[in-house]
Amino acid sequence: MRVSLPNGSGARKEKRLVYQMEYTFSERAKNLKPSAIREIFKYAADPSVISLSAGNPAPEAFPSEAIAKISSKLLSENPVAALQYSVTEGYPALREHLKDYLKSRHNIGRAFDDLIITSGAQQVMDLATKALCNSGDVILCEAPSFIGSLNSFRSYGVRLRGIPMEEDGIELAALEQALKEEPNARFLYTIPNFQNPSGITMSLEKRRAVYALAKQYNVLILEDNPYGDLRIAGEHIPAIKSMDEDGLVIYAGSFSKVLSPGMRVGYAVAPAPIAQKMIVCKQGEDVHTNIWAQIIADEFLTTCDFDAHLERLRALYRKKARYAMDLLDRYLLPAGVTYTPIEGGLFLWCRLPDGVDMNAFCKEAVLRKVCVVPGVAFLTDESEPCQCFRINFSTPTDEQLAKGIQILGELAREVVATK
Amino acid sequence: MRVSLPNGSGARKEKRLVYQMEYTFSERAKNLKPSAIREIFKYAADPSVISLSAGNPAPEAFPSEAIAKISSKLLSENPVAALQYSVTEGYPALREHLKDYLKSRHNIGRAFDDLIITSGAQQVMDLATKALCNSGDVILCEAPSFIGSLNSFRSYGVRLRGIPMEEDGIELAALEQALKEEPNARFLYTIPNFQNPSGITMSLEKRRAVYALAKQYNVLILEDNPYGDLRIAGEHIPAIKSMDEDGLVIYAGSFSKVLSPGMRVGYAVAPAPIAQKMIVCKQGEDVHTNIWAQIIADEFLTTCDFDAHLERLRALYRKKARYAMDLLDRYLLPAGVTYTPIEGGLFLWCRLPDGVDMNAFCKEAVLRKVCVVPGVAFLTDESEPCQCFRINFSTPTDEQLAKGIQILGELAREVVATK
Repeated sequence: MRVSLPNGSGARKEKRLVYQMEYTFSERAKNLKPSAIREIFKYAADPSVISLSAGNPAPEAFPSEAIAKISSKLLSENPVAALQYSVTEGYPALREHLKDYLKSRHNIGRAFDDLIITSGAQQVMDLATKALCNSGDVILCEAPSFIGSLNSFRSYGVRLRGIPMEEDGIELAALEQALKEEPNARFLYTIPNFQNPSGITMSLEKRRAVYALAKQYNVLILEDNPYGDLRIAGEHIPAIKSMDEDGLVIYAGSFSKVLSPGMRVGYAVAPAPIAQKMIVCKQGEDVHTNIWAQIIADEFLTTCDFDAHLERLRALYRKKARYAMDLLDRYLLPAGVTYTPIEGGLFLWCRLPDGVDMNAFCKEAVLRKVCVVPGVAFLTDESEPCQCFRINFSTPTDEQLAKGIQILGELAREVVATK
Repeated sequence: MRVSLPNGSGARKEKRLVYQMEYTFSERAKNLKPSAIREIFKYAADPSVISLSAGNPAPEAFPSEAIAKISSKLLSENPVAALQYSVTEGYPALREHLKDYLKSRHNIGRAFDDLIITSGAQQVMDLATKALCNSGDVILCEAPSFIGSLNSFRSYGVRLRGIPMEEDGIELAALEQALKEEPNARFLYTIPNFQNPSGITMSLEKRRAVYALAKQYNVLILEDNPYGDLRIAGEHIPAIKSMDEDGLVIYAGSFSKVLSPGMRVGYAVAPAPIAQKMIVCKQGEDVHTNIWAQIIADEFLTTCDFDAHLERLRALYRKKARYAMDLLDRYLLPAGVTYTPIEGGLFLWCRLPDGVDMNAFCKEAVLRKVCVVPGVAFLTDESEPCQCFRINFSTPTDEQLAKGIQILGELAREVVATK
């Protein structure tokens, strides 16, 4: 329970050196591990390594000039607004404009909902879990799912139950089974659009069915939609939140993929009592989100042509995604490595042939200077078997993508041949 | 445990209205209340009300021009660095420069320590509690203490035990008694310089004694020092962290009072294993702190004359504090309202004569358009009796201070006369 301190004169001597001490951590924190992706980043920091492991937007996606202009005007005309304390629930103008935008464009938000600004959508995961889950409660997740969210859930001592995915989204029978078996399930966590890491988009029928099941079993839904505006093919599918007549859905959105992730501006649309509790939790975490970034986001949303900007991003990522998929077709498919074609997002989910050791493949890839994320990182139970790895196509240059996927192809051919 | 949904056709009808639903929150969150100060801000938002309740730096304290200049250069020369994802532990240059600065100026940080950047010092309170405390554990606090920290601690289900304060800091006998009686005490939370709200500065002797007691009872110390650079009188007293040969102290610092609170940049210096666990917890909360603000803070620290800036702030607050204390001497002292003379910080702690109803006094003050914070807000047990209220002198103008304190004086004379 306490810090272990050495006693007596031996300890005195030791103090001159780096102090050796055992610290005891909370139950919730003691088993937390840094994200596996972070660990991989250590290799990726080597400039000779081609990183296909990040989740960063393409640097050319940032509207840098517009942001510089807005910031310059703000800091010269109204610096105190950008530098002084602000309110926990978020910059009032941004909240109002986002509410209008989400309602008019996506039918998101009803009279019973409220919108709060968070420090990235990551904080929505944190605050929702903090507000709703006791240690030992269950969160239902798509398997695989975004490691950042899973780790946030884990940090509150909840148990994660993974539900398998199909081509058109979560497996409904498995979801219903889990809802029956888990009386302490607090919410279902889902990324319906271009899911990270699987790239799967949930069909409209499944969204309706998932909502109906949540309603039937009185379980909330945490709908995470960081990539929704980055659709590069197919038809837009309404968010589950747009169907929410019952106050069952907490919707998480973000400016990270459409403006700047370094700004850390996300938001939640949630039934007011939940939003209210999340605000109180946020107050104890960081008081409020960086106010400069909130004002920049608001000005960009309201004074720049946001639609044209999104269209430019979609064109950029459409080109990059098609280029990456062409490379996979050319270099990895012949070696038996398949992938899920995507309609948006930043990732491609590749599957090695059965019998190939996926972790060994990823490790050997690093030795050959290409970094991908082993699929186990995205599982609710990392001890489960997994043949997949994740490739990011938004951060690397075309040259890096071509070279990296070529190297992965060579490696795949070798390991398949020696299998 | 679950959302309560109405069933049957009656519910269908109701759905057309605002949906009425009961949500169940986590044990840790269900009793959390918004900060009492926040509630008071609702009155303070009325422009006809003089707010002496905030904790905002004086608007003229912001080095707005320098920040605008640094930001403009950054966003034109290296926008991607300011807009892209960064690492959880903080902007590497800022971490290094802060480590050097704290070590060379204040002897803070040893070989066993690490420094991490947080989203304001508030996040240090959150992360330390998350990493170290189980629900039911005990945190020892000065009584009264900063409500934002107390609420953060409460949000993890810990029990707070308040230790009374004396003129030169925490009461040592009461602290030792608590250390004996609380085997689950995880750390002592202290603000040694110009404590919020009491204004008390802990003497050097007491800092040494507190450190020795913590060591003897194997309990950590969380030392919060947001106002350390704002000393307006008396001699500098070394931080408890500067005495930390044993890896017992987590030190929280912040740019909020010396640069800008809206930026939300704070930091912790803690033994590396604790810092490491806090980083993992932070990753799940907000991934990293707004990177623009971190770079601005670093550039300001390294390219501007930080010492001259701090000297300017001290001169500003010295003037404001003296002005406020003169007003208290003139208008409140004659009515029997005493206060603790301060050597720094942003607050004055006033005590009403015995027999005066403090809460009624604060409520009546609001009706007369002056907002102060009732002292009970700062108690670990809000049901305890309290004769004090807190005045902030950094945010109001001189005119507002004069008028506000004059009104408080009139009110005090009236209530004392009718006592």
